[in-house]
Order: sequence, then structure tokens, then C-alpha cells
Amino acid sequence: MPKVEVVERILSANDQIAAQNRARLDAQGVVAINVMASPGAGKTSLILQTIAALRGRLRVGVIEGDIASRVDADKVAAAGVPVVQINTGGQCHLDAPMVGRALDALPLADLDVLFIENVGNLVCPSGFQLGQRWDVVVSSVPEGDDKPLKYPGIFTEVDAVLINKIDLQPYLDFDEPAFRQAVQALNAEAPIFSLSCKTGEGVAGWASWVVAAVERARGV
Amino acid sequence: MPKVEVVERILSANDQIAAQNRARLDAQGVVAINVMASPGAGKTSLILQTIAALRGRLRVGVIEGDIASRVDADKVAAAGVPVVQINTGGQCHLDAPMVGRALDALPLADLDVLFIENVGNLVCPSGFQLGQRWDVVVSSVPEGDDKPLKYPGIFTEVDAVLINKIDLQPYLDFDEPAFRQAVQALNAEAPIFSLSCKTGEGVAGWASWVVAAVERARGV
Repeated sequence: MPKVEVVERILSANDQIAAQNRARLDAQGVVAINVMASPGAGKTSLILQTIAALRGRLRVGVIEGDIASRVDADKVAAAGVPVVQINTGGQCHLDAPMVGRALDALPLADLDVLFIENVGNLVCPSGFQLGQRWDVVVSSVPEGDDKPLKYPGIFTEVDAVLINKIDLQPYLDFDEPAFRQAVQALNAEAPIFSLSCKTGEGVAGWASWVVAAVERARGV
Repeated sequence: MPKVEVVERILSANDQIAAQNRARLDAQGVVAINVMASPGAGKTSLILQTIAALRGRLRVGVIEGDIASRVDADKVAAAGVPVVQINTGGQCHLDAPMVGRALDALPLADLDVLFIENVGNLVCPSGFQLGQRWDVVVSSVPEGDDKPLKYPGIFTEVDAVLINKIDLQPYLDFDEPAFRQAVQALNAEAPIFSLSCKTGEGVAGWASWVVAAVERARGV
């Protein structure tokens, strides 16, 4: 009888800690959403608009990731929700140990959904598990419609795609059908939400997706 | 007599190849400028505008760096200048070996200045020498005025800072004095150029800096 080879998937150190983070969030019924984007695409504005849209429906917490500064955490704190700022000190993405330490400082028992705003970067963040249930990418009209062609990795892996700053469409030549077609060629599953965090247009549709995604994650 | 310790700086493999690239460019009298920015800040538009502004003054070549696609190289080729597209295949920055291979495909003897458009990323590209003489970063009005606070590393290291898309200023709350102050706090030496690659406003001033920078590099 031939020897049976048993191959076990060896988790990286980061993935092991991400799994611990996930177990900890699951135990408290908290669903984490990893928000990725280019610098300046509007991740923090999106989170602020989503906090407002979810008020009375879901209890929100936020982890803000940046190379440096606490600009974003101050904005979120002003909205009255629990927030922790992570400064990566040069690292181009969040990792699971950083998020684990941030979880220590959050009142998990009082949360339903946790937005993790990653470092502004369309490449590196998608390679690191944090403990999140869902991944989303925010693109924006001024960045141009060719981003899915140039950064296919991140668009392929996410659970939803947002097009922010549609209020600027009149002043730019962003081809939204071309953008949507390029996303769908990479990722037929992910819904695409067009919205403006300045005017609020389209935010309700995205917020409904968050509510449904949290229910789905909880098996409701 | 105490033993004298001799500490030599050991160049990384990347830095060694960058030094070779630089020697090769120097030998041909070509000055390379590494153009860094977030995705969608307008690096390619800037290069196209600069090609037009330098016509008859400097002979331009271009290396286009992207994770995937040849969208940018096609645009530059249409402007009638030598261009090589590098696809990093997932890597978040260009490196010196990639640029070395691209140099093989360029008519260096016929060039004065070589623009190297790095992968859209405000973090990783600044850590890798390529053989360039100058580094510049392009920021853009829609990204917001807090980028120097959040991504200080790249703003600290560059030789010039550009603020692109000033034509969108009427529709956004970008605080240009705050942006300039934040840059100057990190980097008092770098000139800051405000411009619009859509309208052409401000491009002439930047193009004059390029001409002067090429002359300076050549010791003219």
C-alpha cells in the first residue's frame, strides 16, 4: 500500500493572526469590512456617510489605517463612533497583528459592523488578510476609468466596487460603462455602486448592501 | 595601536543595478526623472503635456510602469516619442532590473531626458532606486490637501512636487496653501508647481524646471 502524503496548508504568521482576529470578531457578532482604495479616493468620506446612513440600524466601529497622522480618526471620532487610528510608520498596508492590537481598544460587544480603512494603495493591501469578512474597493471618477485594467488584482478579489465622486462627472471624461465593463470582466460577482460622498447620491444603495452583507455573514 | 574598523556600504542588488543604469544614462547624456503619484493623479497626462512643451528643446523618451496593461504606452507612442511599457505583473513599484531591460529597448543616444512613470502608489516606489537623477511626485486636487501629512516619506524625498488638476479647484475644497505648507514642513527645498494637464495652465513653468534640471544634471 503506497504511503499517503498528507499535505497541510501552512498558514503564514499573518494569516494565523488574521484567523484569530476573525474568530474574535465572530464570537462578538461583529462583521469587519476592509475598505481599500487609492490615496484620496474618499475612503474616510465613505465611512462617514455610511455611519450616517446606518444610524439606528447597525452599530458601527472604525479602524483607520495610515502611514502617518491621525487626520482620519479625528474626523470619525467627531461622528461619535468608536475609532482606533493605526499608523503603520511607513508600511504600505495594514497587517493582522496591527488590527489585532486595534481590536483590543474597541468595544467589540457594542458593535455590529467594523470598517477597517486600509492604507491608500491599490496594490499591497489586497495581499494581507486582517480578519475581515468582506473586502471592498473604492475607485473615484477623477482617477479615470482605466483603473481596473491597470490594477486588476484588487478588483478581482473584492466583494463590492464603489465609484465615488460622481458629482465630478460633468467636469471629467470618466467613461462609467467602460469602467463597469472592465470590472465585470475581472469579477462578475461584485456589485458596483456609483455614489457621491459629497452630495449623498447613491449612498443609500451601498448602505443597504452593508446591511444585507452583515446579515449574510451572520447567517440571518 | 587599535585595530581600525573599515565599514563599507554594501549596496543592495537593486542599488547596484540602479548605479549601472545611472552610469549608462550618464554616458549617453540622458537625464532620467522618476515620476511618482497615486493611481489616477495624472502622471501620463503630465508626461504628454511635458513632451509637447519640450518639443524642439529636449528629446524625450518614456518608460511606462504599470501592474498590467499597455494603455499608457499607447498614449505616449501616439505622441511620437520612444516608449517602453513595463508590466510588473503584480509588483507595487518599478525596480532597477526592470528599468535596465527597458533601457536596452530605447535609443539612448537620441534622448536628452527620460521620464520613468512609476506604478501608481504613494508608498513603495520611493524605496527603490532605478538609475534616475531626479524624483518628482504628482499630487492632484481631488485627492485632497492632506496627502503630505498621510504619506510624508515620498514628499520628503522628492526634488519637485506637482499639484495637478487645478481646473477642478472650483468644485472641491482643496486648501492649496495648507498643502504647500505641509510640503514645505517636510521638504523646504522642493519647488511646488500647480498646473492642469487638461487646460495646460502652469505646464510651462514645470517644463522650464525640467530644462533647468537637465542642464544642472549635465553641469551646464
